[in-house]
Amino acid sequence: MTVAAPLTGVVPPVCTPLTPEREVDVPGLLRLVDHLVEAGVHGLFVLGSTSEAAYLTDRQRRQVVQSVTAHVAGRLPVLAGAIDMTTPRVLDHVAAVTSAGADAVVVTAPFYTRVHPAETARHFRLVAERSPVPVIAYDIPAAVHTKLPAGLVLELAADGVLAGLKDSSGDLAGFREVVTGARGLSGDTGFAALTGSELVADAALALGADGAVPGLANVDPHGYVRLYRLCRAGDWAGARAEQERLCALFGMVGVGDPARMGGSSSALGAFKTALHLRGIIPSATTADPQVPLSPQETEQVGKYLAAAGLL
Amino acid sequence: MTVAAPLTGVVPPVCTPLTPEREVDVPGLLRLVDHLVEAGVHGLFVLGSTSEAAYLTDRQRRQVVQSVTAHVAGRLPVLAGAIDMTTPRVLDHVAAVTSAGADAVVVTAPFYTRVHPAETARHFRLVAERSPVPVIAYDIPAAVHTKLPAGLVLELAADGVLAGLKDSSGDLAGFREVVTGARGLSGDTGFAALTGSELVADAALALGADGAVPGLANVDPHGYVRLYRLCRAGDWAGARAEQERLCALFGMVGVGDPARMGGSSSALGAFKTALHLRGIIPSATTADPQVPLSPQETEQVGKYLAAAGLL
Amino acid sequence: MTVAAPLTGVVPPVCTPLTPEREVDVPGLLRLVDHLVEAGVHGLFVLGSTSEAAYLTDRQRRQVVQSVTAHVAGRLPVLAGAIDMTTPRVLDHVAAVTSAGADAVVVTAPFYTRVHPAETARHFRLVAERSPVPVIAYDIPAAVHTKLPAGLVLELAADGVLAGLKDSSGDLAGFREVVTGARGLSGDTGFAALTGSELVADAALALGADGAVPGLANVDPHGYVRLYRLCRAGDWAGARAEQERLCALFGMVGVGDPARMGGSSSALGAFKTALHLRGIIPSATTADPQVPLSPQETEQVGKYLAAAGLL
Amino acid sequence: MTVAAPLTGVVPPVCTPLTPEREVDVPGLLRLVDHLVEAGVHGLFVLGSTSEAAYLTDRQRRQVVQSVTAHVAGRLPVLAGAIDMTTPRVLDHVAAVTSAGADAVVVTAPFYTRVHPAETARHFRLVAERSPVPVIAYDIPAAVHTKLPAGLVLELAADGVLAGLKDSSGDLAGFREVVTGARGLSGDTGFAALTGSELVADAALALGADGAVPGLANVDPHGYVRLYRLCRAGDWAGARAEQERLCALFGMVGVGDPARMGGSSSALGAFKTALHLRGIIPSATTADPQVPLSPQETEQVGKYLAAAGLL
Repeated sequence: MTVAAPLTGVVPPVCTPLTPEREVDVPGLLRLVDHLVEAGVHGLFVLGSTSEAAYLTDRQRRQVVQSVTAHVAGRLPVLAGAIDMTTPRVLDHVAAVTSAGADAVVVTAPFYTRVHPAETARHFRLVAERSPVPVIAYDIPAAVHTKLPAGLVLELAADGVLAGLKDSSGDLAGFREVVTGARGLSGDTGFAALTGSELVADAALALGADGAVPGLANVDPHGYVRLYRLCRAGDWAGARAEQERLCALFGMVGVGDPARMGGSSSALGAFKTALHLRGIIPSATTADPQVPLSPQETEQVGKYLAAAGLL
Repeated sequence: MTVAAPLTGVVPPVCTPLTPEREVDVPGLLRLVDHLVEAGVHGLFVLGSTSEAAYLTDRQRRQVVQSVTAHVAGRLPVLAGAIDMTTPRVLDHVAAVTSAGADAVVVTAPFYTRVHPAETARHFRLVAERSPVPVIAYDIPAAVHTKLPAGLVLELAADGVLAGLKDSSGDLAGFREVVTGARGLSGDTGFAALTGSELVADAALALGADGAVPGLANVDPHGYVRLYRLCRAGDWAGARAEQERLCALFGMVGVGDPARMGGSSSALGAFKTALHLRGIIPSATTADPQVPLSPQETEQVGKYLAAAGLL
Repeated sequence: MTVAAPLTGVVPPVCTPLTPEREVDVPGLLRLVDHLVEAGVHGLFVLGSTSEAAYLTDRQRRQVVQSVTAHVAGRLPVLAGAIDMTTPRVLDHVAAVTSAGADAVVVTAPFYTRVHPAETARHFRLVAERSPVPVIAYDIPAAVHTKLPAGLVLELAADGVLAGLKDSSGDLAGFREVVTGARGLSGDTGFAALTGSELVADAALALGADGAVPGLANVDPHGYVRLYRLCRAGDWAGARAEQERLCALFGMVGVGDPARMGGSSSALGAFKTALHLRGIIPSATTADPQVPLSPQETEQVGKYLAAAGLL
Repeated sequence: MTVAAPLTGVVPPVCTPLTPEREVDVPGLLRLVDHLVEAGVHGLFVLGSTSEAAYLTDRQRRQVVQSVTAHVAGRLPVLAGAIDMTTPRVLDHVAAVTSAGADAVVVTAPFYTRVHPAETARHFRLVAERSPVPVIAYDIPAAVHTKLPAGLVLELAADGVLAGLKDSSGDLAGFREVVTGARGLSGDTGFAALTGSELVADAALALGADGAVPGLANVDPHGYVRLYRLCRAGDWAGARAEQERLCALFGMVGVGDPARMGGSSSALGAFKTALHLRGIIPSATTADPQVPLSPQETEQVGKYLAAAGLL
């Protein structure tokens, strides 16, 4: 299956369930995929940040893409992250995930190294040249420590290098510049502007986003599908109410004690704990060196689920 | 060969010469190694930041370690970087470089993901548990965006987790805290405190560092070996004069036009260009997506070499 | 006049016209105030960042507040910034601007010094205790280098310490948390949640903001008043079209050459140049050490005005 | 008295003792000055960061400078900070402190506003033009969030704009570039390169610094005077031992609980507590909104003093 032109709708960044031994729990992963597909999501994004791609070995990454693409069998598009530091290493991942069946690759700016916008542009051009599938830029300054300038994204979109943007920057004004600027292009290049925000997805859709890639959609895919439909129907009051319910639910990412763990441990731990409590995956195990939630923190996740009507 | 306890002296982070097609130039690499060994360096560090480890594929990384360890054949210790985002991925690199013959591994804090000091500690503990060779912490906030706290390094050193520190943080006061604090430990654990600074190596040695890992030692290994011996001999005036000559030479890292390229392209481009101009490697090619130096910038590198008496 | 409870609508942060000798141009300032009031704005904010408060001496600050409050004479509320590093210095400004007639004060977190959330909370509590008028928190991390946590703002609002928030953080998700969380409070405390964004004011109003404080409203107050009314009327398509027109106009803040000047020089220079080209103020002079726009850059500002139908 | 050309030696940034009501405790301040002068310091720096200048009102700032200059009566040079956001406000402070008797002014880059190196240069040029006394640049990125580039400092030194640098950046390599580069200038301009480091003052002096401005010299001026003399005598082993003793003493800045207070509260609180415990000032009160040390934290400061032989 090829990516719709452009990709639209709710595209969850799929969590990667792990066994207690920290191997990919393939049955758990496929159960999670079924849970998402049945809720009506429009695509799947594997090997993103929410998928703990940064923690998975190359072998595990391949396992994830192969299992999911085989299971989905073209029913909806599967995007795969090719997350690594620089062009040559990203290209190895592009080869791996596309030979495993990914319909598009999601690529960040270079990181670890000190990078210049001209080098970031060169990076995306080189990746796109050699990728057999469309390339979607992943703007995630919290991880890579540079922000993709709207002008650069639009230039690469106009040149057919980028097929879309996943914006996890938190900068809605910059995202709007891309959305508005890409409008002229939408004819044949089919540029997809996707927000990574859990919290202002309604606002992003209102200003013209094509879709949303919220990590919380693992936990409550029905909520985000509903939100998407309300926005598309122009029911902004209804969308706002649904969004506010999801914002309250998202509070779960803060359950982890900041004296004991970082933001990834807390947020990914909360998502996986919620999936476990909802009976979708058998273990809330996160990858090393993350710290697991305590029993008290786990209980709090349950309260968030109950308050949102999910437990 | 095993790592001296503790490792001391000048340990250059070895550049990785590339062919114009951006493959590892193995003969060039071995010529560079000979150039360093003949100058009297005390160890070699491959697959560090100066080695463009962030840009090398796994296949290329293996090629580098295998060629160098086979060529060096135990004459001096070979440290290898195992640079990746998190514990599971780092462990794959540890396995690869140690099976290729590395005498020690050099490991950073996790990056890309938002990390907590407790998770960084856990990361080093897990890596050390499974590494067949000593683990040296690599403090490089410019790349990983967190600083290793001195207290954490000392705690891990006391527990035998870390065999040393390569400090590329630029924070000499923090490094001093490690050097002073590790003094009590030096008995059997053999903790090696190594500065990554090109510019205040004399000061670091004066306050008690065991050695230096300066990228510029690729270009002028004799200079850094001389500097090390002057410091060890207590000839601080002589050391300062030599250090100031090396500081002037280091100015070459700024030749790249900041409107056209980032700091890596400029610094690594200058080192490789200098090695090329000195006749040690056949091509100054750097890895993608870095931008090459222009002819004018190349000429400037030559002027730095000439001023330092190296051309 | 006291501040409406809560303050709502469009509240421009008023530019401070300067003479070529860099004294406050009082007649120019009052002409600008008239231009804003006639456009239907709902309040005025003097001595904010857009007012170049950081560049005005204490004497000039007093001059600004006195002239504006006397001229406005209670027709609409006048908020005044009390921008300084810490509590004792802020309190001096609070005394000065309130004795000059300000209806509310706008106060940032401490800056220059390394501050802790507990100290920021203490700062607002001490200021509010001694301020004769309501205190509005000013969240502007680009200037003060800390972000006001939503939880802290809500706690201070619940305790009656803060009468509102001006959010110039660019973080719409965080702002939403304040807006939603303050809803329970709105009864008697009258908390006003104001966005400082020029670019997503429509989104902020859609999610429940009480008003907007956009610097660009100096240049096009009619546009922002229109936008506010469209939002209040629930005409989201109309609001989006007006907002997109204003976004295009806002492009003027980027006319300054980044090789020659910083973001303040460019943005404040563009606003003042636009006011000058529109015939509202006699000189586009900005305060020292800012760099003035070149003739070519000035011409570009004119093109932005023409494209927006303002020239 | 005029500033020596160049200024050399130990120049403590003088703490500002406060009464429990948070007014300047003038007798306490003068007792502290006597304590410093009797220990043999070479100059005094009032209204710096360690002096809590960011927390003092304009009235209190004047009080400090007047009291100290009158008391010192030309026996040694008195430098005064003119700490504020931009040129016009800094110039008001320059006028105030010089009319109160300061022999030189210490000025940072602009802050709060987004600044460009060209504007920073313009700032120092404008201040120097109108200052009746020499201007010393204060490089303190932790407070102002930009770093003074070495090249800029040297350019301004060569043009006679700057009479010196107080480097509190923690970047010894950058400081070295200024020290080395200023050597050619030393003839008549008399540029003074002063380190603000408590912890690597020996290293800074070894590489050519003219003097040191360590906050900890309030607590142990004899130690820093001894350190300075050992360095000048070329007794580097002795200097290192003294420096390591002072490093251990400096550990006191970390006594404050990071869950309860920020770095300023902890460090300034520890210095003032130490002065109080040593019987030099009557109260350890710090300015608002800083948080005071607890009895347990106060006790810990005492232990640091005892371990260093100061109690």
